[in-house]
Amino acid sequence: MQALDGARAHIRNVPLENIAGLAKDRFGDTSVIPLWFGEGDVPAPAFIGEAMNRAIAAGHVFYTHQNGIPELRETLATYLSGLGALPVGPERITVTASGMNAIMLALTLICEAGDNIVAIDPVWPNTGGMASLLGAEVRSVRMDAGPDGWSLDPDKLAASLDGRTRAVFFASPGNPTGAMVPLEVQAAVLKLCRERGVWLIADEVYNRLAFGLASAPTILDIAEPEDRLIVINSFSKSWAMTGWRLGWMVHPPSIGPTLAMLTQYTTSGVTTFLQHAGVAAIREGEPFVGSMRAYCEAGMGIVCDALERSPRVRMGPRPKAGMYAFFEVDGRPDARQACLDILSATGVGLAPGIFFGPGSESFLRACVCRAPDVLRQAMQRLAPALA
Amino acid sequence: MQALDGARAHIRNVPLENIAGLAKDRFGDTSVIPLWFGEGDVPAPAFIGEAMNRAIAAGHVFYTHQNGIPELRETLATYLSGLGALPVGPERITVTASGMNAIMLALTLICEAGDNIVAIDPVWPNTGGMASLLGAEVRSVRMDAGPDGWSLDPDKLAASLDGRTRAVFFASPGNPTGAMVPLEVQAAVLKLCRERGVWLIADEVYNRLAFGLASAPTILDIAEPEDRLIVINSFSKSWAMTGWRLGWMVHPPSIGPTLAMLTQYTTSGVTTFLQHAGVAAIREGEPFVGSMRAYCEAGMGIVCDALERSPRVRMGPRPKAGMYAFFEVDGRPDARQACLDILSATGVGLAPGIFFGPGSESFLRACVCRAPDVLRQAMQRLAPALA
Repeated sequence: MQALDGARAHIRNVPLENIAGLAKDRFGDTSVIPLWFGEGDVPAPAFIGEAMNRAIAAGHVFYTHQNGIPELRETLATYLSGLGALPVGPERITVTASGMNAIMLALTLICEAGDNIVAIDPVWPNTGGMASLLGAEVRSVRMDAGPDGWSLDPDKLAASLDGRTRAVFFASPGNPTGAMVPLEVQAAVLKLCRERGVWLIADEVYNRLAFGLASAPTILDIAEPEDRLIVINSFSKSWAMTGWRLGWMVHPPSIGPTLAMLTQYTTSGVTTFLQHAGVAAIREGEPFVGSMRAYCEAGMGIVCDALERSPRVRMGPRPKAGMYAFFEVDGRPDARQACLDILSATGVGLAPGIFFGPGSESFLRACVCRAPDVLRQAMQRLAPALA
Repeated sequence: MQALDGARAHIRNVPLENIAGLAKDRFGDTSVIPLWFGEGDVPAPAFIGEAMNRAIAAGHVFYTHQNGIPELRETLATYLSGLGALPVGPERITVTASGMNAIMLALTLICEAGDNIVAIDPVWPNTGGMASLLGAEVRSVRMDAGPDGWSLDPDKLAASLDGRTRAVFFASPGNPTGAMVPLEVQAAVLKLCRERGVWLIADEVYNRLAFGLASAPTILDIAEPEDRLIVINSFSKSWAMTGWRLGWMVHPPSIGPTLAMLTQYTTSGVTTFLQHAGVAAIREGEPFVGSMRAYCEAGMGIVCDALERSPRVRMGPRPKAGMYAFFEVDGRPDARQACLDILSATGVGLAPGIFFGPGSESFLRACVCRAPDVLRQAMQRLAPALA
């Protein structure tokens, strides 16, 4: 008998397959062009590592505050207050071990077995994965794909909520769609959540990668501090810190002590000197964020140019934000198999739509945050599969 | 109405108070001698940070394997195989964001609402805290304090298990007691868990801090790979890496993919370059571990010398492992209040027994992993409170 039989039943039933699982046998294989993750090929700028080393030299190597070091909470508060229309105080910020870790803390606070959350999809799958670990059901409300791109119908969302719904999750700009939810639609969602007493978890991880904008519209501009609202963010994308593992959440002040307790019992907190690296990233990173935005926009152009040349590719208008192209290929309804075939035939790693919610099974996601030459090579390799 | 009202009921009922909470207002206050945490005053040796910087320079700054980088899993397997009597393969090792994070993953795998775990106490409180987050009950089986120190009665343990018991948790060497459970008693516990189909979570975080021994007795020496056994460990204590946040678990090979999935949805993995620091710590850290062991032994001598001079202090034989003295003071049955009084009167931070399970309410815990001069100063400051 295997030990796994001793795991609880619903954990055994959570699918093991995810993008990381698809990729794990090819980590470090330089013949692969890895467009499957939400990750670029640019390392974080050197000043961030230098700030980390200064923190180590200064002795910031011991246990610290569960909500994050005051210096980073204050730096993030100042940053967010400058970026949006409303001030955000440090008492609303908790530093986390990643954007995912922030979602874990939020859902652990909110959900238990028998509850449900409503995820607006196509959506990054990991939020639903974490809800499943808690025994909560994940419901999907699909955005509509129209000539102007993906849009959310708040009435459809309202119809999906019931008495066991504890949270609505949406990302803007979206992953995988890049869609930005207009602020008036976000306001309708917030109003609905207020009326129903439901939490709103807003993933704004891509908010600095909106092409031609300083920032995508943020729900923080229309919310009250004590709204049941948690805004997720991360250093991974805009500061190119995927492997560093650092994120944050904006939350009602009243739940700060509870988040400290949840942090204590799940990770016991975030690497101390890494938080000092985060301070430097925010304070000195604006030119770099601008370069990442331009890099993604250029990559989006290269990838979409190629996709639009292929008569078999179906794709809406080009995304105006984020780091992904999300498209279908005529005659390839099973994108999971298509990804495996494409990986083996071309060495290009794509992510299959099956991970992004029901209705996306025929979609492929390609990360565009790569060097132009690499993206051109990837699209050349892909051409026969798309022709 | 505060947002916290929207948290689920049993999360609101988990006490917010813990050692970190007690300490948080005095972080960085140099007038305090902080003996409350399980943390020394020695930073990790420089070669560990240098290895981390080499990893960053080599481009190990992106997402990586959910079970940990192969190099660290193999390094840990070799290390454990050399330390114990039986070989441990890399497929049994998962790298975690801390020892606490390893416990979180283990309990998430095993426990749900309505289950219970049995913790052998006096015990570090955070395991029970995490079980509470899952809605599981935490039962205590207390070790007996005798003339030879703390000892565990397996029959008492057997009597505490019922049909909803999913796991037994024990630490050896113990925190706060420093007690080492003899291997024949560990064998009895393992046999009991096998008979009942219950998981055994063994915390061996202090195993390298057994005075005069290369390592404390490890349950890995008597277990089969597919036993329902998870052994928790961490770089925090023996390699002085508390603020770095790095740990590992030894587990049955069959649950490796499930642990990868759980990691994906809770933290999405451990900082990549930090794992390379872990490789260096294991490969080159033996002299440092030896020095930490000697440092703790010296500190234990200084603290126990002083405590034994006080007629009001009740303490068993000196601990032979770990980094704590655990004692009572006649006339001070409420150790929590005693800690607050002592902190305010003397500036010495102690941890109250209330956190270590029922029956320990009158105990105080002092970390002895500090420079001899600092410990002597602390004991001088404490003398009036103990006289």
